[in-house]
Amino acid sequence: MSKIADNIKQIRVLMENDGIGVYIIPNCDPHLSEYPPERWRVRSWISGFTGSTGIAVITSNKAALWSDSRYFLQGEKELKGSEFIFFKEGLPETPAFYEWIQEEIANCGGALAIDDEAFSYLETEKIEKLFAKKGIKIVLDFNPIDKIWINRPEIPSEKIFEYEIKYAGESYQEKRKRLLDAAAKHDCNAILLTAMDDVAWAFNIRGADVPFNPVAVAYGYIGKRDNIIFIEQEKIDKNTYKYLTACKIRVMPYCFIYDYLSHLPSEERVLTDPIRTNSRLVGILKNKGNYILGQSPAMLMKSIKNNTEIEGTHKAVVRDGVAMVNFLYWIDSSIGKIPLDELSVSRKLHEMRANQPLFVGDSFATIAGYGPHGAIVHYTADRESNATLKPEGLLLLDSGGQYLDGTTDITRTIPLGRLTTEEIHNFTLVLKGHITIATAQFPEGTRGSQLDALARMPLWKEGLTYLHGTGHGIGHFLNVHEGPQNISLKESMATLKPGMTTSNEPGIYLTGRHGIRTENMTLVEERIENEFGKFYGFQTLTLCPIDTRAVDNELLSPSEIQWLNDYHIRVYNTLVQYLGTEQAEWLKIRCSPIGK
Amino acid sequence: MSKIADNIKQIRVLMENDGIGVYIIPNCDPHLSEYPPERWRVRSWISGFTGSTGIAVITSNKAALWSDSRYFLQGEKELKGSEFIFFKEGLPETPAFYEWIQEEIANCGGALAIDDEAFSYLETEKIEKLFAKKGIKIVLDFNPIDKIWINRPEIPSEKIFEYEIKYAGESYQEKRKRLLDAAAKHDCNAILLTAMDDVAWAFNIRGADVPFNPVAVAYGYIGKRDNIIFIEQEKIDKNTYKYLTACKIRVMPYCFIYDYLSHLPSEERVLTDPIRTNSRLVGILKNKGNYILGQSPAMLMKSIKNNTEIEGTHKAVVRDGVAMVNFLYWIDSSIGKIPLDELSVSRKLHEMRANQPLFVGDSFATIAGYGPHGAIVHYTADRESNATLKPEGLLLLDSGGQYLDGTTDITRTIPLGRLTTEEIHNFTLVLKGHITIATAQFPEGTRGSQLDALARMPLWKEGLTYLHGTGHGIGHFLNVHEGPQNISLKESMATLKPGMTTSNEPGIYLTGRHGIRTENMTLVEERIENEFGKFYGFQTLTLCPIDTRAVDNELLSPSEIQWLNDYHIRVYNTLVQYLGTEQAEWLKIRCSPIGK
Repeated sequence: MSKIADNIKQIRVLMENDGIGVYIIPNCDPHLSEYPPERWRVRSWISGFTGSTGIAVITSNKAALWSDSRYFLQGEKELKGSEFIFFKEGLPETPAFYEWIQEEIANCGGALAIDDEAFSYLETEKIEKLFAKKGIKIVLDFNPIDKIWINRPEIPSEKIFEYEIKYAGESYQEKRKRLLDAAAKHDCNAILLTAMDDVAWAFNIRGADVPFNPVAVAYGYIGKRDNIIFIEQEKIDKNTYKYLTACKIRVMPYCFIYDYLSHLPSEERVLTDPIRTNSRLVGILKNKGNYILGQSPAMLMKSIKNNTEIEGTHKAVVRDGVAMVNFLYWIDSSIGKIPLDELSVSRKLHEMRANQPLFVGDSFATIAGYGPHGAIVHYTADRESNATLKPEGLLLLDSGGQYLDGTTDITRTIPLGRLTTEEIHNFTLVLKGHITIATAQFPEGTRGSQLDALARMPLWKEGLTYLHGTGHGIGHFLNVHEGPQNISLKESMATLKPGMTTSNEPGIYLTGRHGIRTENMTLVEERIENEFGKFYGFQTLTLCPIDTRAVDNELLSPSEIQWLNDYHIRVYNTLVQYLGTEQAEWLKIRCSPIGK
Repeated sequence: MSKIADNIKQIRVLMENDGIGVYIIPNCDPHLSEYPPERWRVRSWISGFTGSTGIAVITSNKAALWSDSRYFLQGEKELKGSEFIFFKEGLPETPAFYEWIQEEIANCGGALAIDDEAFSYLETEKIEKLFAKKGIKIVLDFNPIDKIWINRPEIPSEKIFEYEIKYAGESYQEKRKRLLDAAAKHDCNAILLTAMDDVAWAFNIRGADVPFNPVAVAYGYIGKRDNIIFIEQEKIDKNTYKYLTACKIRVMPYCFIYDYLSHLPSEERVLTDPIRTNSRLVGILKNKGNYILGQSPAMLMKSIKNNTEIEGTHKAVVRDGVAMVNFLYWIDSSIGKIPLDELSVSRKLHEMRANQPLFVGDSFATIAGYGPHGAIVHYTADRESNATLKPEGLLLLDSGGQYLDGTTDITRTIPLGRLTTEEIHNFTLVLKGHITIATAQFPEGTRGSQLDALARMPLWKEGLTYLHGTGHGIGHFLNVHEGPQNISLKESMATLKPGMTTSNEPGIYLTGRHGIRTENMTLVEERIENEFGKFYGFQTLTLCPIDTRAVDNELLSPSEIQWLNDYHIRVYNTLVQYLGTEQAEWLKIRCSPIGK
């Protein structure tokens, strides 16, 4: 019996003991992180599916896993041979998650179980509403994993450090004041910070507990009466301790959060985000009546970058652009001459970034997908899949850096030689979508979901689309994905505000053929104020040529050509001073204007 | 003391008697109609403000009224001299409705009162949640109006008639079956129909109780056990009675609905739409436990037109187009020669439509706004405001017809002579937005809110916008506005489905200068099915030239010019056979192609 089959069997025994018919297993830590530390990747461990999104369900006689379009191919591959049925989210034939569970629970009976540390309060409430009214019992603290997972990874124990004001632009004290002012609007005198990046942002600290995300496993409590970081003390060195003490931030052991909240004085009214706080924590506050549910002001404040953060990002994208240009020059002059593959070019790109000042690490695992691999949206090459690059076709390269003064995220789809007419056509459609977002202007109050279709229309008109979002928020030396803003098919009530950074990344993925994505970072900035109010636009931050060898000029309008030529002038003028002679010459050619 | 001041005074006396501090007064009938019969226009009666949207609030010492951008100018005018503070929705300085009430109730004390027949269950629930948690008492059945409103209009008593299958395309029995199948998915064996147009659609009847809307004041109950129309019997003649009897539809007096629902057998499970059902009705069902809340399937089914309805609409838009062309020819050849004003041209247009077969009446009050009046979005000319037309500037003309085989809605902005550069520029921007929607293609599952920005972007890029929606659903010989679909700034979960009709009507309104809107009706139709699923597009239904004398060709792209020229070929070829010689020649010129 395989390890996975054996684990499922053991879980089923424990389920049966507790009268549980269905057990839902996400990859989720108690901070509800998008990328949880290894310890909490329970869904990956139980299923063998390593994608960043997806949720598993084990019933007394079935096992199933849902994931989205980015992982359709990877999911099929990784789950092959296991008991897991793979459900592809977003396809018409895919059953809705909770409806499937309702049917299964009707078949197999028993209770529905979750680990309430791995679910937000809102999600748990939704589950309770859905199932309780059907008379189904819900077990909230089912956690059989500790008993079964031999050598389960520990909570990471990397050191944290003060994030200096010269990069952060706003002191902890100022942020504390703003947070408490925002909490007061909800009649609260304290705020609970549960997302690791909210904690890092509010206290001006950074860590290294999560690959690619400079955050630490910690909770924060900021109140009029008391300010605490709940974190393992081994992570704090003398300097950091000094910094925290100077800020009057108390340090308490990580696991004390539950006990602390259980003993809050009755006058503490804690603003608690029902979407960002795990259900167990909210349960404690709810029992005591110390809470008010409301959106975390930290998330919104963090998403609006201050002038120091914006200046830092402007500097970081110059260094990132230099690294990219050095890399693109290298690949252009090496392809067909020396052996290259997906893994080796990813390593080379990392080296190019690592040569840049203030570089800390990659902001996510580089996606280097050659040819058909480009169509696997969140492809990560491994030794087995690693494709050799030939002087033809497209290499999709999505990468980014964590610099002390900013986080970057860029995708270029690189022509390695001869392209097909279809590749050039689709590259140009994606570029048209990209330019439509880059040149958009919109009134105050506009949500990203209103703009998303602008990027897709050139593709939609030809019966093509992509299932991921057009844009996501980007942290400042923090997580490469952050909210609340996005540019997405899905509705979100978050409006785009000046100072927010988002990606602009339409794409097209044709299974077995090619994948194309063109991604720049943008900054929302104010443009006009008149009788109709304020109008905003996106300032493109990323500085790196978009390869015009893959562009069909005939498909571009005069204003689209103008945008591309203007962008290339800016890229060239900004980067040339930091380049070697050969790289500068290469960039001059790559930035030369196109016309019809 | 004015009548309005006197009425407010009397209401305040009754409020004080009942311990009420704040009383909310919408213009809303028990069917939650957009256009309620006169009897239920309580807000208009109490305030003097006649706009179609808007809500009044009377407190023990203040009176206030909120309405949207369409009525900013009208509201200011009509409320002048009264006690009412006019709050303009959507402006940054305007207080949020419920927040303002919360503040006022904190000042003046007492309970919050509404008439729960004039509020949906969802709205009432929201009010209860908002205020109950602050310890504010809520009085749900406050209705002082009957005591104060002398000669309050009666419930209308127009006859109803069978809507023949040759126009409806689907029998009552077939609709009943589909409704009960949909109800069964919610574990229901009956469905309550409360919106007048849902009742008319489901029973295949039409009425004349509401100006412009061929509906009757009636409720419907469709169940496995029993099928009833609650309506005043005087409205039913012998033929209609025969039709209803043949359909096994029982007729019960209108006001019996409350009693009937109070005595439902316990096994009746009634699907009740919390947004479309008044709170008093839901309250009765809730007390008895006979209800399941869920979206009315009638609304969605009604919005998706069947082939007969689509064919009927195609015929209706031809006749409507002929009427419009006859009218446009007339105005073009009369302006500057005979005296014309807003009212006289509206009457003329009505005549032109009335000459067409199957015409029943206008589908709403014609908006004829000349020059600065065009900037008043839902302007209705009256004797006082009535402007004389001069051979210059723009006349905004929004009108529509109720034909037995379909409802129409069209706006043309007509150049009466010399135009300013700004007028031509803005007309062209609006046209660009219109064409963007007309030529859009989008995948299954797309919501109208995702497409709305496409129509606005040409305006947004120049710091202009309009605050109304880009498109609304249109009934079939029913209300000119219907849901669930729309193309709007506001989020709506309704997706666009083949068979739905919507308007496409971007605009621009510059106070004191001019208003421009170009509106066609469209039909959602399937275009492509491939590996990415199904793609839909809008087929433009309306047939009437868009005046190219107001177009700046230089601002249009080649594909936009192509669309306009193709549209004009279709308009000409379809309509010419129904026109007189002079009108046909006029149309040929107005449909001649433009180029750069």
